[in-house]
Amino acid sequence: MTKYNFYAGPAILPKEVMAEASQSAVEFGGTGLSILEMSHRSKEVAAVLEEAKVSVHELLGTSADEYDVLFLQGGASSQFYMTAMNFLGDDESAGYVDTGAWSTKAFKEASKFGNASIIADSKDTNYNYIPKGFDIDGASKYVHLTSNNTIFGTQFQAFPDSNVPFICDMSSDIFSRKLDMSKFGMIYAGAQKNLGPAGVTLAILNKEFAAKTAREVPTMLDYQTHVKKDSAFNTPPVFPIYVSMLTMRWIKKHGGVAAMQAKNEKKAGLLYDEIDRNTLFYGTAAKEDRSMMNVCFLLHDEALMDGFLKACADANCIGVKGHRSVGGFRASMYNAMPEEGVQTLIDVMKEFENVNA
Amino acid sequence: MTKYNFYAGPAILPKEVMAEASQSAVEFGGTGLSILEMSHRSKEVAAVLEEAKVSVHELLGTSADEYDVLFLQGGASSQFYMTAMNFLGDDESAGYVDTGAWSTKAFKEASKFGNASIIADSKDTNYNYIPKGFDIDGASKYVHLTSNNTIFGTQFQAFPDSNVPFICDMSSDIFSRKLDMSKFGMIYAGAQKNLGPAGVTLAILNKEFAAKTAREVPTMLDYQTHVKKDSAFNTPPVFPIYVSMLTMRWIKKHGGVAAMQAKNEKKAGLLYDEIDRNTLFYGTAAKEDRSMMNVCFLLHDEALMDGFLKACADANCIGVKGHRSVGGFRASMYNAMPEEGVQTLIDVMKEFENVNA
Repeated sequence: MTKYNFYAGPAILPKEVMAEASQSAVEFGGTGLSILEMSHRSKEVAAVLEEAKVSVHELLGTSADEYDVLFLQGGASSQFYMTAMNFLGDDESAGYVDTGAWSTKAFKEASKFGNASIIADSKDTNYNYIPKGFDIDGASKYVHLTSNNTIFGTQFQAFPDSNVPFICDMSSDIFSRKLDMSKFGMIYAGAQKNLGPAGVTLAILNKEFAAKTAREVPTMLDYQTHVKKDSAFNTPPVFPIYVSMLTMRWIKKHGGVAAMQAKNEKKAGLLYDEIDRNTLFYGTAAKEDRSMMNVCFLLHDEALMDGFLKACADANCIGVKGHRSVGGFRASMYNAMPEEGVQTLIDVMKEFENVNA
Repeated sequence: MTKYNFYAGPAILPKEVMAEASQSAVEFGGTGLSILEMSHRSKEVAAVLEEAKVSVHELLGTSADEYDVLFLQGGASSQFYMTAMNFLGDDESAGYVDTGAWSTKAFKEASKFGNASIIADSKDTNYNYIPKGFDIDGASKYVHLTSNNTIFGTQFQAFPDSNVPFICDMSSDIFSRKLDMSKFGMIYAGAQKNLGPAGVTLAILNKEFAAKTAREVPTMLDYQTHVKKDSAFNTPPVFPIYVSMLTMRWIKKHGGVAAMQAKNEKKAGLLYDEIDRNTLFYGTAAKEDRSMMNVCFLLHDEALMDGFLKACADANCIGVKGHRSVGGFRASMYNAMPEEGVQTLIDVMKEFENVNA
């Protein structure tokens, strides 16, 4: 019986990706070895790393002349400080848009370097909307955004107009929709939502933007170390990169980012329509800022909560419990979530209304 | 046909570990989900993280009252600077023993903090021995050692007498032999040799030693962040930790570290005996410092090199080519290498002598 995995992350991956990864954990590509025990310098694994890098360029429509693609370790949490450490000189300033827990952490780490300040936030209403129309100081080195807020279910529908480049945490919506790459000095994303399993972090750096400041930093924390050695200065996390490569291959096979976007818009439309229609539930995020990836909703009658979670579990919809910061429910619907998973959840909501309304 | 994997790292893992990991990549422990798509906060994955931690204590004979066990990202290369950043105050000193490429890098990164100095080295003879009888300044905060030198095939047979605690990089020999833990303030190890696949780094910290200096560091780079959150401050690399946990379970099932040591001594004895007996080959490391893990050897007649590599490949012994810094051949024989793999390599050497002597 298929389980529909609505966890926020680590999160659902395509079934065929997991099947191939499973096979390669025993024997990879006719080598007689498991990919888990193969050298990152072997020609077979080097080809995996290369395909992963090239696939990122293909999916984003970027060229290797303009952008560097890195596979790093330490999660987005490490990018919070590495970005400021590398790019924000002691006398430079950067603006941070605080749209939730992860943005707040990014700002906190950056504030140890240069002059970082929060230029807009939605803290007043528990981050249930995306600030708009805020001023961007043209003298800023960069503005930091979190494109999608996993916890609060909000997402930038359009990125602001700005002459200052964005550094954007896209951990929870990379490859879910088309982007105008010209706005970004850098994008980073922990893999464990739309890209692959936990254990690798993707960084895409505009070469012109990403020249390091004069600050001396440990070798491993200098992006240029990894640029020069093509993400293999030291042993990279081979298997997480491999599974990410398979996931990107799956995205390309299924029509690329544009097709993912169409599918994601359809899934999100179906579920938000049900939330708005169903008399038992209501959404938590401002309608114009609703996330396609993480749908947060509450029951008018909180006493029904355990009953609804049980109904979801009985229908094999798992991971629907909301984050403690918002409560209620959260359905995460990354690229790999099939429409029938969303339809199954909607059917549970309808049936639950029939019984409880 | 079984291939015998003599690669230095990422390296051989037990067949039964890879089989179980492969199964769990499709469906883990009756959850209906792949371990690749499961939340690190789920009770099933939390149990994996807990078993991994407890297994480290069991294998080292340490108690959770005295030692913290962490699973980190970024490889031993990240520990090179994190150790000094966390433990070496601006006015404190530390001694580094330079026994090869990795020690040299550890010293280079540490030299950006406090007063690090090289107190002994074997650079004069291309690191083919382990320095002994060197002085340790009792005022040092710690002395840094690399217990086994993967590239040069040397290994500390016994650790020096010292009142100063050691910080030791055991990436290539952790769990290969019994240790007197009282000598170590901290041990760290990239997983991808004796412990698991690439993508996770083990750190064992003596609680008394590991109090951080006053230096302000990014949250992710403070060991105490990870101690407080039990290695789950942010999303940990779930699958690499899971496979490491399986590998530790395998070690325990096969008699623990003492049994691994007996097996490793036997394998190394067999191969070094053949190198010393065979008229075509000679070892590169000083006999008293020979590594049980990485056996480096050369041909007297270098013209035979390609022929020997071909003979190895024909016998399914792969990864035998030496590192460019030493040349010749290197047979890495971690815990998971069965005795018959070593015997197969020895048979190739004997046959090669019969044909070419």
